[in-house]
Amino acid sequence: MATKLIECVPNFSEGRRPEVVDAVAAAVSRVPGVILLDRSSDADHNRTVLTLVGSPEGLREAILNLYEEVAKHVDLTQQSGEHPRMGAVDVVPFIPVRNATMADCIALSEEIGAAVAERFHLPVFLYAESAKRPERKLLSAIRKGEFEGLSAKMQDSAWTPDFGPGQPHPKLGASAFGARPFLIAYNIQLGTADITIANAISKAVRASSGGLMNVQAMGVFLTDRNVAQVSMNLLNYEKTPLYRVQELVKAEAARFGVPVTGSEVIGLVPQAALLDAAAYYLQIENWSPALVLENTIMEKASDAELVSR
Amino acid sequence: MATKLIECVPNFSEGRRPEVVDAVAAAVSRVPGVILLDRSSDADHNRTVLTLVGSPEGLREAILNLYEEVAKHVDLTQQSGEHPRMGAVDVVPFIPVRNATMADCIALSEEIGAAVAERFHLPVFLYAESAKRPERKLLSAIRKGEFEGLSAKMQDSAWTPDFGPGQPHPKLGASAFGARPFLIAYNIQLGTADITIANAISKAVRASSGGLMNVQAMGVFLTDRNVAQVSMNLLNYEKTPLYRVQELVKAEAARFGVPVTGSEVIGLVPQAALLDAAAYYLQIENWSPALVLENTIMEKASDAELVSR
Repeated sequence: MATKLIECVPNFSEGRRPEVVDAVAAAVSRVPGVILLDRSSDADHNRTVLTLVGSPEGLREAILNLYEEVAKHVDLTQQSGEHPRMGAVDVVPFIPVRNATMADCIALSEEIGAAVAERFHLPVFLYAESAKRPERKLLSAIRKGEFEGLSAKMQDSAWTPDFGPGQPHPKLGASAFGARPFLIAYNIQLGTADITIANAISKAVRASSGGLMNVQAMGVFLTDRNVAQVSMNLLNYEKTPLYRVQELVKAEAARFGVPVTGSEVIGLVPQAALLDAAAYYLQIENWSPALVLENTIMEKASDAELVSR
Repeated sequence: MATKLIECVPNFSEGRRPEVVDAVAAAVSRVPGVILLDRSSDADHNRTVLTLVGSPEGLREAILNLYEEVAKHVDLTQQSGEHPRMGAVDVVPFIPVRNATMADCIALSEEIGAAVAERFHLPVFLYAESAKRPERKLLSAIRKGEFEGLSAKMQDSAWTPDFGPGQPHPKLGASAFGARPFLIAYNIQLGTADITIANAISKAVRASSGGLMNVQAMGVFLTDRNVAQVSMNLLNYEKTPLYRVQELVKAEAARFGVPVTGSEVIGLVPQAALLDAAAYYLQIENWSPALVLENTIMEKASDAELVSR
């Protein structure tokens, strides 16, 4: 069996004290089989986002270490920042990367969420694909009222947590755990400086105004380049693939006689999203990920440890 | 340092005795860090092609094992088949796969070629990217005259081998070692049954008649589908990328009013060839392989052993 590789992006409520962020980052990255891909702190938000990738077992240990370290340093009764939060560790999403399914990530969010609730005596809510109730799908609904309103909110049995006590932890609040697909931040540049055209295209392609599911979009003007851009989040590239978004933006731009001049990926993009685009544009009839040399190598190297130290 | 991963495709002159092929395959696949991706024997050709992938050290051991086993069973004075051959192990190409350059493969072909020449007392010629003389670039030039003509051919100092004795081994002949790019076998289906159109397009796109460098092409009629096809070998997808071939075939087909209805990959295709196509069609301005999630993971997992057992 090839190693399951899962991404985990814990958000915690400290973005001002570098020594605390260092200690938390060290606590997760010392775990064998876990790689810290990125860390990003914002002082105004007073929040840090870690991007980890690892095996299910490795991530379990890393997240428990993270709570232990955060609990030493963060007390929400003393913390404030621009970013809404209900927990010292606010939200812990799990994303399938390789040899792992969404079901694996749901199971892992439940397993680690339950372990955290038990060890640290704090309520854990399951959100996104892991949500057990429709009203818990959106993190914003769970977090509404934030840490300060949580104690009152949880009096209502509608907000009984999925794991842990019926009251928030006095210093650590509560956490949301859940599985979600990889989010691709993708921008398309137009051959015009007219922001109204970028806005019109954005409105046409995004889900909220009748466009493609799993697409968020807005027009942005790039001052330094004097170019209008369709700036997007693609929330589920498997169901709503990159190439379909690209082709729809092109088609909508054509009504204005405006070409697509380029695009950009912000952050990272999963290999599968690009391979799907190649298979579409090259019209490969016998397309399968097994046609890719590297995938076949990985498959045959079945007992190789993909991530180990 | 990430592990260098190199493909090696030794061809040896036995395709009729399964027990011999089994023994040779076992001799290479027992080496740690070497994976046998494919084996393909042809009885008419009396020849077997193994596709291995592994670390430089692993491949060195595997190729020495292969010679040892072949030397036990194959005697060219007793062997015949349709496929031209000058050696019991005829040709040993090395192809960069991951974290390895063409220079790495040239160096490895020299290192293993020299080791084989010394241990087995046979002449080794460097060909393809490893060739030290222009007239040794093509395997067919080195092999001309085959095993039976080799002894006379090597009287001429023009055919002094790069390693080993100045005379062929009495039973094993001589071998060619060299580095080359990955070959992609790629076919494009046309919206016509007219083979003359597929032939005309093939002539337009292939190197031999003025088309794209590194492209071999011919028209093929698919009887079962009643469809004409442009059947191609892409000899260097880095210099002459897949998408450029696709677009040129489309453009040439357009003069006949014929659409491209699909394509197919025969065998395997390196990930990079498809990622380049995606970056082209999606017009990604900030394209870099480092944008790919899995590549960044591999990069960060720098001390992980990619292939180990």
